[in-house]
Amino acid sequence: MLDQFDIALDPMFPPVDRGRLISALSEVLPAGALVTKTEGMRVYESDGLAAYRGLPAVVALPRDTGEVRAVLRTCARLGVPVVARGAGTGLSGGALPSPGCVLLSLSRMSRILAIDPDARTARVQPGVRNLAISEAAAPYGLFYAPDPSSQLACSIGGNVAENAGGVHCLKYGLTVHNLQALEIMTLEGEGLTLGGEALDAPGFDLMALMTGSEGLLAVVTEVTVRLLPSPSHAQVMLAAFADVRQAGEAVAAIIAAGIIPAGLEMMDRLALTAAEEHTHAGYPTDAAAILLCELDGAEDDIAEELERVAAICEAAGAVQVRVARDESERQLFWAGRKGAFPAMGRLAPDYYCIDGTIPRRRLPDVLEAIGRLSEEHGLAVANVFHAGDGNLHPLILYDANEDGGIERAEALGGKILELCVAMGGTITGEHGVGREKINQMCAQFGSAEIETFFAIKAAFDPAGLLNPGKAIPTPARCVEHGAMHVHAGKAPFAHLDRF
Amino acid sequence: MLDQFDIALDPMFPPVDRGRLISALSEVLPAGALVTKTEGMRVYESDGLAAYRGLPAVVALPRDTGEVRAVLRTCARLGVPVVARGAGTGLSGGALPSPGCVLLSLSRMSRILAIDPDARTARVQPGVRNLAISEAAAPYGLFYAPDPSSQLACSIGGNVAENAGGVHCLKYGLTVHNLQALEIMTLEGEGLTLGGEALDAPGFDLMALMTGSEGLLAVVTEVTVRLLPSPSHAQVMLAAFADVRQAGEAVAAIIAAGIIPAGLEMMDRLALTAAEEHTHAGYPTDAAAILLCELDGAEDDIAEELERVAAICEAAGAVQVRVARDESERQLFWAGRKGAFPAMGRLAPDYYCIDGTIPRRRLPDVLEAIGRLSEEHGLAVANVFHAGDGNLHPLILYDANEDGGIERAEALGGKILELCVAMGGTITGEHGVGREKINQMCAQFGSAEIETFFAIKAAFDPAGLLNPGKAIPTPARCVEHGAMHVHAGKAPFAHLDRF
Repeated sequence: MLDQFDIALDPMFPPVDRGRLISALSEVLPAGALVTKTEGMRVYESDGLAAYRGLPAVVALPRDTGEVRAVLRTCARLGVPVVARGAGTGLSGGALPSPGCVLLSLSRMSRILAIDPDARTARVQPGVRNLAISEAAAPYGLFYAPDPSSQLACSIGGNVAENAGGVHCLKYGLTVHNLQALEIMTLEGEGLTLGGEALDAPGFDLMALMTGSEGLLAVVTEVTVRLLPSPSHAQVMLAAFADVRQAGEAVAAIIAAGIIPAGLEMMDRLALTAAEEHTHAGYPTDAAAILLCELDGAEDDIAEELERVAAICEAAGAVQVRVARDESERQLFWAGRKGAFPAMGRLAPDYYCIDGTIPRRRLPDVLEAIGRLSEEHGLAVANVFHAGDGNLHPLILYDANEDGGIERAEALGGKILELCVAMGGTITGEHGVGREKINQMCAQFGSAEIETFFAIKAAFDPAGLLNPGKAIPTPARCVEHGAMHVHAGKAPFAHLDRF
Repeated sequence: MLDQFDIALDPMFPPVDRGRLISALSEVLPAGALVTKTEGMRVYESDGLAAYRGLPAVVALPRDTGEVRAVLRTCARLGVPVVARGAGTGLSGGALPSPGCVLLSLSRMSRILAIDPDARTARVQPGVRNLAISEAAAPYGLFYAPDPSSQLACSIGGNVAENAGGVHCLKYGLTVHNLQALEIMTLEGEGLTLGGEALDAPGFDLMALMTGSEGLLAVVTEVTVRLLPSPSHAQVMLAAFADVRQAGEAVAAIIAAGIIPAGLEMMDRLALTAAEEHTHAGYPTDAAAILLCELDGAEDDIAEELERVAAICEAAGAVQVRVARDESERQLFWAGRKGAFPAMGRLAPDYYCIDGTIPRRRLPDVLEAIGRLSEEHGLAVANVFHAGDGNLHPLILYDANEDGGIERAEALGGKILELCVAMGGTITGEHGVGREKINQMCAQFGSAEIETFFAIKAAFDPAGLLNPGKAIPTPARCVEHGAMHVHAGKAPFAHLDRF
């Protein structure tokens, strides 16, 4: 959340003389690999969560694994924190520079090293853009499935660090499910190979542990992803409902019927109206909610499943069910969805995007509860989200220039996340914890889990130099924060009355 | 491998007075929860790898999480090693008692706690048998996918500890891909909840880390698995080849064509002949190898895919392609496969089952190389395995009563595993490392990986009391063993000439 920058609660590092740091790095890196001037470092001041800003001591731009090793070893020796950064599109402040840190940008390591169409893998450097992998695989009829909405810009290394999702993750899984192998570099400059071409690796599953670890354990220096055959056909259905609850019930019923859509997205009236004004996608603006349900695969199977989805939506009370007439209308339906975030500018000067997940079956209850919270707090909330995954993106509309505007948005966001936890869900779906939600981790987990996270962090990085103050709160922070200790799945549902 | 019991290389624990241990456990457990007499403990002497045997100090049989906590806290306090055991069907000595240990049997915790057909989950105690979950889910049209060949007997807790596979894992994934949540208990008696009903959990992926950790990190006290809709139809095709290499090529071609069989198994002449004599499944005994390719799903899709598989097999050189005439022939085809291990008794007094994996595309090369190794060592090798996964089960035929018989089988087994590593594969597919392959871990991994495993082990269990001497070798053991350090994926393939 947009709280104050309370670094005091995090591990403190004795300040290192900046001149000494720059000179040590200059000795091990070629010319042009460091950015030291303030104006040059401004672009690294924040990631996609621009409310948090800070300047690093220096920015390092390694071009290969050897240079990453040199930076890490120097930082380990001098006791300087290191924050790794991909494309900087993250939405939770994961790449926010810590005071006095070396900002390690992987942007120059952006080569596709190999596409193997037989093994169906792509071996790439961490700075390669997500979409560039699918583009390189397209001539072989293959694609890389996880597709965060930032896929044009975001890097695969960042995707690994955040265990990124996307519209297609309902069918194809998260980043962790689409990885074959990782090369990582520890703070001490040790290179490790995790995973591999074989079915299952012996020993502990370090590849899964590394995925989603938000830069706290090691730096990803190479990624081998799995590629999938591009589906021959895709079709999208739009179902409109007069009641948000019915739309939520339709989502649960589609999944319960054993249908696995390639995407299953939901927008409520506020969101779909703004999107329609913005994109003219042909959305029915008199609906309380719409679903977009995409199916891919063989043409016959799609036709059959579309009929089943239509029947389920109608049984749930849909007032309108339409299949896109052709490919251009299919693209238009999706363009509306993709334009929903920017469309919020039509409704309010600012919006705050929340990212929580809930068990899919709780969707109708949670949507109703968010509606009540919105009224209580006097702030409109538009809902646009990955309904099939139970991954919510409530957009809280506010005006940052109004007195107390940010604080009210924050307070409502906190309530929505508490609601997610109480419903057996989580405080983040695909955006990560980063800096933004580090205090909410104390709500998500009990002290035993937090201490275990901390012990694992210490196993990789005992000095705590890798991305300090992110993702995993120190036990001291949780004590200070007065953790709720409402544990996922153990929350007393009776408490829901207060939402 | 069947090496000597060289516990001296592993962490040593000061011996604890057995009387004191039993009395301490008696204080915290109800009557009947301990087995202390030698004859009663005999059944716990080994798991499915009967070549390794040892007696624990005492066997504890907790009935609930509270009793598991009591045992673990007592062991932590007294510094006594703990070996958890499910059904004892493991094939790598993972449940072999350490000298002086408490053998913690989870067999009494065998209740199915809940089946939720809407959420498609089953919440069960760790001692529940794998197949019992599918039986309980069957009335709802659901099943639990991972199906190790021991599924009649093996327990879900053991499946989690080993990240168990099975015939259907090619399509449906390993245990880790079919879990929703775990309750675990640390050595200190802290209960942790890992995973949950929501898409993705924040923090490090402890559920994946725990899965396949072979009892080294904590004890599983509750498992929530994902259930899948039972496929409406299934059909199996038998393809016979005059050349093992062609069968291997057909496997690679089927997968490369984007077909995902529910099972894709291979047997070579020695295996299929013995199986045929044992089961009369109708296998063509003049073939050099057969494939069994099962497809499941909608009837039309199966018919279409069977045609594609047949065409691929014929293009690869199949001399015969047959679809099972009816359900009873389908069952018969599989009965032959399932009876292949016991059928080995017709060929030799003893067999030693190797479990390695290789990248699927290396299958033809590896099968040829195993044939050469078999000739060089003068021991017949029958191959029966999960071809689609690249998970080999070479069965080395030998006579334990012959002088040096075991040693020759061991030596050949070691060479086959080295071959797997050199081909970019692993020393174990689904049987785990356990006691059997702990030295081979030093061949699979470099010192940086081994040290990281060790650091993670220490994060959960700094005293090293949980299942000592299994799965993760101490760095000292690797030094002593003279590790090969041929790293998966980095092996110089030129070395293959020596196989």
